[in-house]
Amino acid sequence: MRLTEDDCRLRLGDARHATLSTVHPRRGVDAVPVVYATSGSQIFIPVDLVKAKTGRRLRRLANLATDPRCVVLVDHWSDDWSELWWVRAHGTGRVVEDAGHWQELLAGRYPQYADPASLAGGIVIDVTEMTGWAAG
Amino acid sequence: MRLTEDDCRLRLGDARHATLSTVHPRRGVDAVPVVYATSGSQIFIPVDLVKAKTGRRLRRLANLATDPRCVVLVDHWSDDWSELWWVRAHGTGRVVEDAGHWQELLAGRYPQYADPASLAGGIVIDVTEMTGWAAG
Repeated sequence: MRLTEDDCRLRLGDARHATLSTVHPRRGVDAVPVVYATSGSQIFIPVDLVKAKTGRRLRRLANLATDPRCVVLVDHWSDDWSELWWVRAHGTGRVVEDAGHWQELLAGRYPQYADPASLAGGIVIDVTEMTGWAAG
Repeated sequence: MRLTEDDCRLRLGDARHATLSTVHPRRGVDAVPVVYATSGSQIFIPVDLVKAKTGRRLRRLANLATDPRCVVLVDHWSDDWSELWWVRAHGTGRVVEDAGHWQELLAGRYPQYADPASLAGGIVIDVTEMTGWAAG
């Protein structure tokens, strides 16, 4: 039931969306849905100009600047619980102002990012530990 | 785009699964997929005997005993980003050994919990703040 690290990487690479949890100075924790791309032991989460945000849109960036520790969780749901699985990546995140080579990787996953101008940098996470679980 | 609190409650009540993020003493944050039930301003997350767990199954409980602050996030995904929405509930969680009236609420949402013996208590979260966002 515990997934191998290779299996975790494959599932993380194939999944479409995840949750990013960060350390919040007052609330303790914060969480936000994210899209992402992976490469080697890194995860990139775009700061985009596509999905309209509320006024608190930079909270995740402020949290990471204060404490870079974070978790990316992919949760595969099914009403049939024999099909459940999840992958969790712990790591440290830093904010970058230029998406660089990540823009192409993101565009390959999400056509919404085909235009490089759709991105305003992002978060590069160096994964330090990856674990996963599957019911089946 | 920002959801009203009433709308947040409705969507949280209707959704099927969520992510629970807690404060981890060393890692900073931890996150785990959960099922849940809601009632008033409370969320109940079962500790169940249905879904087989890895050895770290009680991590979320140990985290909450050390720091009760937590976040429950429901993330509605679609490849069509005009259909995206999420609801986030901040609160404080405490572990209870008896699911009490929550068992029936859970069983109404998940047939897997029809047998009260399927539950080994759970986490009661008193929600202190709820926010949400929808693209549409």
